[in-house]
Amino acid sequence: MFRTHTCGELRITDLGKKATLSGWVQRIRNLGGMTFIDIRDRYGITQVVIDDKSSDELKNQASQLGREFVVQVAGEVVERASKNAKIDTGEIELRVQSIKVLNKSEVPPFTIEDETDGGDELRMRFRYLDLRRNPVKNALLLRHRIAQETRKYLDGQNFIEIETPFLINSTPEGARDFVVPSRMHPGKFYALPQSPQTFKQLLMVSGFDRYFQLVKCFRDEDLRADRQPEFTQIDCEMSFVERDDILDIFEGMVKFLFEVVKGIKFEKPFQRMSYAQAMELYGSDKPDLRFGMTFMELSDVLKGKGFSIFDNAEYVGGICVPGCAAYTRKQLDELTEFVKRPQVGASGMVYIKYNEDGTFKSSVDKFYAAEDLEKVAKKMEAKSGDLILILSGPRKKTLEALCELRLEMGTRLNLRSKDVFAPLWVVDFPLLEWDEEEKRFFAMHHPFTSPVIADIPLFETDPGAMRANAYDMVINGVEVGGGSIRIADRELQQKMFKSLGFTPEEAERQFGFLLNAFKYGAPPHGGIAFGFDRLCSLFGGSDSIRDYIAFPKNNAGKDVMIDSPASISQRQLDELQISIKK
Amino acid sequence: MFRTHTCGELRITDLGKKATLSGWVQRIRNLGGMTFIDIRDRYGITQVVIDDKSSDELKNQASQLGREFVVQVAGEVVERASKNAKIDTGEIELRVQSIKVLNKSEVPPFTIEDETDGGDELRMRFRYLDLRRNPVKNALLLRHRIAQETRKYLDGQNFIEIETPFLINSTPEGARDFVVPSRMHPGKFYALPQSPQTFKQLLMVSGFDRYFQLVKCFRDEDLRADRQPEFTQIDCEMSFVERDDILDIFEGMVKFLFEVVKGIKFEKPFQRMSYAQAMELYGSDKPDLRFGMTFMELSDVLKGKGFSIFDNAEYVGGICVPGCAAYTRKQLDELTEFVKRPQVGASGMVYIKYNEDGTFKSSVDKFYAAEDLEKVAKKMEAKSGDLILILSGPRKKTLEALCELRLEMGTRLNLRSKDVFAPLWVVDFPLLEWDEEEKRFFAMHHPFTSPVIADIPLFETDPGAMRANAYDMVINGVEVGGGSIRIADRELQQKMFKSLGFTPEEAERQFGFLLNAFKYGAPPHGGIAFGFDRLCSLFGGSDSIRDYIAFPKNNAGKDVMIDSPASISQRQLDELQISIKK
Repeated sequence: MFRTHTCGELRITDLGKKATLSGWVQRIRNLGGMTFIDIRDRYGITQVVIDDKSSDELKNQASQLGREFVVQVAGEVVERASKNAKIDTGEIELRVQSIKVLNKSEVPPFTIEDETDGGDELRMRFRYLDLRRNPVKNALLLRHRIAQETRKYLDGQNFIEIETPFLINSTPEGARDFVVPSRMHPGKFYALPQSPQTFKQLLMVSGFDRYFQLVKCFRDEDLRADRQPEFTQIDCEMSFVERDDILDIFEGMVKFLFEVVKGIKFEKPFQRMSYAQAMELYGSDKPDLRFGMTFMELSDVLKGKGFSIFDNAEYVGGICVPGCAAYTRKQLDELTEFVKRPQVGASGMVYIKYNEDGTFKSSVDKFYAAEDLEKVAKKMEAKSGDLILILSGPRKKTLEALCELRLEMGTRLNLRSKDVFAPLWVVDFPLLEWDEEEKRFFAMHHPFTSPVIADIPLFETDPGAMRANAYDMVINGVEVGGGSIRIADRELQQKMFKSLGFTPEEAERQFGFLLNAFKYGAPPHGGIAFGFDRLCSLFGGSDSIRDYIAFPKNNAGKDVMIDSPASISQRQLDELQISIKK
Repeated sequence: MFRTHTCGELRITDLGKKATLSGWVQRIRNLGGMTFIDIRDRYGITQVVIDDKSSDELKNQASQLGREFVVQVAGEVVERASKNAKIDTGEIELRVQSIKVLNKSEVPPFTIEDETDGGDELRMRFRYLDLRRNPVKNALLLRHRIAQETRKYLDGQNFIEIETPFLINSTPEGARDFVVPSRMHPGKFYALPQSPQTFKQLLMVSGFDRYFQLVKCFRDEDLRADRQPEFTQIDCEMSFVERDDILDIFEGMVKFLFEVVKGIKFEKPFQRMSYAQAMELYGSDKPDLRFGMTFMELSDVLKGKGFSIFDNAEYVGGICVPGCAAYTRKQLDELTEFVKRPQVGASGMVYIKYNEDGTFKSSVDKFYAAEDLEKVAKKMEAKSGDLILILSGPRKKTLEALCELRLEMGTRLNLRSKDVFAPLWVVDFPLLEWDEEEKRFFAMHHPFTSPVIADIPLFETDPGAMRANAYDMVINGVEVGGGSIRIADRELQQKMFKSLGFTPEEAERQFGFLLNAFKYGAPPHGGIAFGFDRLCSLFGGSDSIRDYIAFPKNNAGKDVMIDSPASISQRQLDELQISIKK
């Protein structure tokens, strides 16, 4: 028996009890003959005390302890002289009768505190020590909680968890696969799944009706800060449903999670918005709805007044920033610099100040009379004191730049609190995206997504205009989940493959098993997948999914703790009958 | 809205209700102008009826349906004339008002019935149809239930679920790894984990205290019937525990699962038995305790009577088979043949019949007087009517052969019912196993297993005699889980690596991160892993884990449904900078 209680358990009601604790030495303080040691475990911290009446042996033992030593201490629960309201055990301490060192520790390479002195690289190399720190520990505890509650909700909705295989086949469509050479079948390879997409559809063909899985997926992409080569999805599929059935169930899931995990109750249904509308109002298919400042197209009121930049622009539009009419020259210059950064890509910015006194001041006063500016203000429902910021240029590019500007203003005005959550559904995405380089269409969601039924005739005339029966759940500008109604009809699926430039032979080779399955009674079905790492980081209020992964890889796809990937032996290469090209 | 109810939902209390069902056509019967159609979904079967009063259009539609068509039928719930007590909906039927074909089906390659006419290979190729059959569907529903309840139990015991990485490094110790070539680091490879062993130990070093995960693991082995290249473990680890703490928690888990999933309550603690005792009494480290017939060594009573086979044998021992003294010559010959099979490996069998009339008859009457045989019977506590079967030879080989014989007799006497569950813990395994071929020790459990503390001095003198602080849970002769107290001390771990023939450099290269972690305060810890596929098949009463895996691989490691593994493109090989040896 290593302990009678955890380090987060003892309370004032336990006074007088004998207790044995085990944990790590967090801190040692010597104060006038007394030694105070904070003992830490996953559950909390308890102060233990060796006073001047203790035996010399005990004092000697205590003097030899160091930070992060693993100790077992036994003693009596006593009331603290100076209480600590910040921790649950803060009213008591343990008067130590014995100390046993269970394991020593060298001095850790960085301090194990909420704020540490360790850099990113060092903490990743010693991730097992980084994980001792509260922020990282709590991130994983949160992840655990969300995982359990997710399954509880889905189980309660009659979803069944079915494990799909990890060793499957490579499909060239989409991102790059990780592959696994087969020893038993030399020259052949398995691939790790980018998602269980085809398998979950087969499970619908099998009649499982409602499937889910919290499952690792793999993509061999060049990594960005928020991507990992292996990531986790809440993967779901349902049969005999239409779009809104799916949205209802999963809106229910996210509401449930917010309520049980964060105590946040969403009374109203989540907003729904078409892709077209999201692009027009926010310049993004994942708008951050924590604040307004929607776009207003201003071509009608601003063109034809002799300002050639606007006159020649495909799109002129702006946002109304509340209460910022008093922005200084310097502040406005900063914003102009911001929109001109290559990542944003605007060529310039026009402002109109609607001053508190009702007058207007703009950077284009030369071209526009006060009445013109007032018309703009009226169209934008601006109030005196507001600042109007306007961009112009090619439509798509300008909408995207305006999106960045809007987010920047939201950030500057503190309208993007991590404690506020603004969810919405974006629906009716385009079915296909034209790829200029490859001169062919790609599926915007994936090749199994059903078009909106009314748009099917467009396959023959204008495929690029087709809408997909697809949807994303967006919270605070983050796409947390996405899915679609699937094609359940063999002919329609073949038509889709054709429009993506697959020959019938290619389609058959890659997805023959799915096309075959559709011969034997596929039910109408659809589904969704949530990015679990991202959902956790959103719940935790972090921008980085890495904090919510126990052992993440770095941007080069390396695990620096175990130094992976690594060389393998010649014997292994020989068994697999592969060789490395020099 | 595709349905108002599922096909398993309507009852006699719903009489008169309008209902819409969606599902698959299970069966169509025409009876005197009436057409009865069984509609099936995951939840059940409902009979729908088109009677002679129905419209011609409806009759015509019904006549065009075939098995496995996906249909939507709407109608009124009416009472059945002839009720079917076998199904939950058997008191009602749906009088159809409309039928809509949602999808057609070709004639399936085998019948979708509990007993099918499809062979194994065909059913695997069309696994999505095989999964429609009740036995397979129910196996996966059971698996789902066990998974949910397992997590519920462990969550309730403060275990936290943490996902460990799938892309790790290859370790030559143990079974073969699947490897994954890295594109970003050409010439280097990830490996898929055989288990999260080192990661869960690092999580203990991190202080997570109690960890679990239901996790896929991978082994590139030549497959046997009950092995899969990817399999699922309930993987667990705990800190600040001794062996019995772990046994208690996981005995609790298995009892909980039996109770909530199967309604079976184990009142008493599971039996515990040392490895040595299990070998001596059952010739196996995973004895089937559903029946007795424990071994009795008989050297003392049977040697020295002039029967040279026994006199020269290292071991003479037998089992007492109750009530089989009347076995015929033919039956006894069969058993002799059985033990002489190469898989069993005995050279012969001696029997002693303790007849109902109190006399003895044996195959070695020439050498033994009735008094000798009576001594044997007494020693074995045989009763008149029992049959004693005796094998002899080298100890280990003979114990193993006797084990096979015992199991065979258990099967013949119907003592191995799938509805009876006899769990036990086997403890105190040997730490090391000598490998004759490689002339070195291997870890019997794995290199991180702690020796029994009292045995540590044997490292220097007699490593082969050391006991591991390891344990297996065995149910009905199946090893469902196994684990150990781990080494938490850097020096002891290095000593262990040394006894396994690792040079310090090899140990450092492969497990340096773990040895390093042990420098910074590793808590005493231990854990266990359950074979989840096997646990499910045990609960389901099946010998094959394949039935409990949605998309299993065959014995050649192939998924014949998707035809995996397969070739990959030259472009992929080039990107990975590997080539295939011809």
